[in-house]
Amino acid sequence: MIVPGKRTTKVEVQRNAGGEVHTVADVVAAEEPLEIRIEVPGSRSRDHRVSVTMRTPGHDFELAAGFLYSEGLVRERRALVDLRYCADVEPQEYNVVTARLRSSDDFDPDLLNRNFYVTSSCGVCGKASLEAVEVQGCAPLPVGTLKVSDQVVMEAPSELRRQQEVFGRTGGIHAAGLFSAEGTAAVVREDVGRHNAVDKVIGHALLAGRLPLAESFLTVSGRTSFEIVQKALMAGIPMVVAVGAPSSLAVDLAVRFNMTLIGFARDNGFNVYHGAERVEHRLVGNP
Amino acid sequence: MIVPGKRTTKVEVQRNAGGEVHTVADVVAAEEPLEIRIEVPGSRSRDHRVSVTMRTPGHDFELAAGFLYSEGLVRERRALVDLRYCADVEPQEYNVVTARLRSSDDFDPDLLNRNFYVTSSCGVCGKASLEAVEVQGCAPLPVGTLKVSDQVVMEAPSELRRQQEVFGRTGGIHAAGLFSAEGTAAVVREDVGRHNAVDKVIGHALLAGRLPLAESFLTVSGRTSFEIVQKALMAGIPMVVAVGAPSSLAVDLAVRFNMTLIGFARDNGFNVYHGAERVEHRLVGNP
Repeated sequence: MIVPGKRTTKVEVQRNAGGEVHTVADVVAAEEPLEIRIEVPGSRSRDHRVSVTMRTPGHDFELAAGFLYSEGLVRERRALVDLRYCADVEPQEYNVVTARLRSSDDFDPDLLNRNFYVTSSCGVCGKASLEAVEVQGCAPLPVGTLKVSDQVVMEAPSELRRQQEVFGRTGGIHAAGLFSAEGTAAVVREDVGRHNAVDKVIGHALLAGRLPLAESFLTVSGRTSFEIVQKALMAGIPMVVAVGAPSSLAVDLAVRFNMTLIGFARDNGFNVYHGAERVEHRLVGNP
Repeated sequence: MIVPGKRTTKVEVQRNAGGEVHTVADVVAAEEPLEIRIEVPGSRSRDHRVSVTMRTPGHDFELAAGFLYSEGLVRERRALVDLRYCADVEPQEYNVVTARLRSSDDFDPDLLNRNFYVTSSCGVCGKASLEAVEVQGCAPLPVGTLKVSDQVVMEAPSELRRQQEVFGRTGGIHAAGLFSAEGTAAVVREDVGRHNAVDKVIGHALLAGRLPLAESFLTVSGRTSFEIVQKALMAGIPMVVAVGAPSSLAVDLAVRFNMTLIGFARDNGFNVYHGAERVEHRLVGNP
């Protein structure tokens, strides 16, 4: 029997420390598949199977909601009637979540066969990927809604880490957190998949009716790729702070949509890859 | 004009070091989509579109070959006539690779609609995911073909890092390497995606006619998830050494198929999550 939300698993490991071998108890981050389905009223067919993602159990409804939102399949809170674990799965493993939509008008099944990276005619390229984000309705982010001090940026990774429940025990899990301009983390979520941690945070905000997130910034424990920046854009988040490095396409996407993208954030510094006007200099050394 | 295999991009960043702000030149790891297609002789339809992955350009044919092999779409070297960049894409961005198969007998189009995590009836769960790997023809790995000393395990991460060309310049890229029992890295590949780095290594071995890899071990720079262990299994690799932590499902998969799974590998120690019999104790402290 699997308990919903079991985020770690106990294992026994053979520890080799410089040649000294001991058997010790250890804890690893749980990884389980989650299937996300959509149910449309009046539809005669069974639920639409949308995706299977390998995730750390816990906050599954947030993950499903955030995924559907960042893929453009659910465009607003009220399109979503409810989320529930699929009841006709035996035994119940809490690994299938169905999102019930209000009306068939809220759902475009063609979106299931598209994806962000492909346009039909020209093959694929970075430029086409950026354009696909535009097609999803993302516009350049305005300046002026959010301003964050350099001190808050430097403190964000430690604050994220402090709120991670699973990392300390496993050392093997990513985190994403939604922060106010003053550096308070409103919500922190963890997952073995970087993208899932971000979807959980965005799903939390969607379900709370808090999208778009024009006055918050997102902090992530790892690197930033196209996918992470794209999800933040869909949620209207004007600033992403990452502990790791960005990829070239993450930078391109930030430039195109005027997002503030920060990498290598530490307690003593950070790099701004785009959008420095949203960072306020308060620390000494201010030029 | 994009040059094939351009693995880094120059960017300008605003560096904030404790409040001191400077504009500096920086380098980030390149990320571009790659579409993988299959061409089957005698087929009247156009190429089958298999997948789009966001990857770091370079070794694209290896990536495509490794992906097709680890997904079970190409089962042996001779099923693959050749790989080439799609010529009818204008402008040529080197982001579409077509794998030409020898015969339609070598290709099961139904596989394109399946995936590793889903079985048709029972929804999804970790157990079903493990069973799906079995369905792909993976059997428990034999003991006796590979034995690696603890000293070689501890040196593998540094050796991997030494052979990484892009990491030193960007700090933002994963690596996977195929090592002999003596600790020599036969091939090291880098990518913004952990899974892509592994596919490149496996593709390299496939194209060289070296599969299965019963006498090699795989070293990866990051964590091990279900996906990474599954790919190694498909290639018959009996040992995976990771710098990061494993997930629960990675451990489950290693146990089920008797793979040696090592995590937190450092120059002074490591954890064996399963399959300690393939690790030889040579260092002092040996019990």
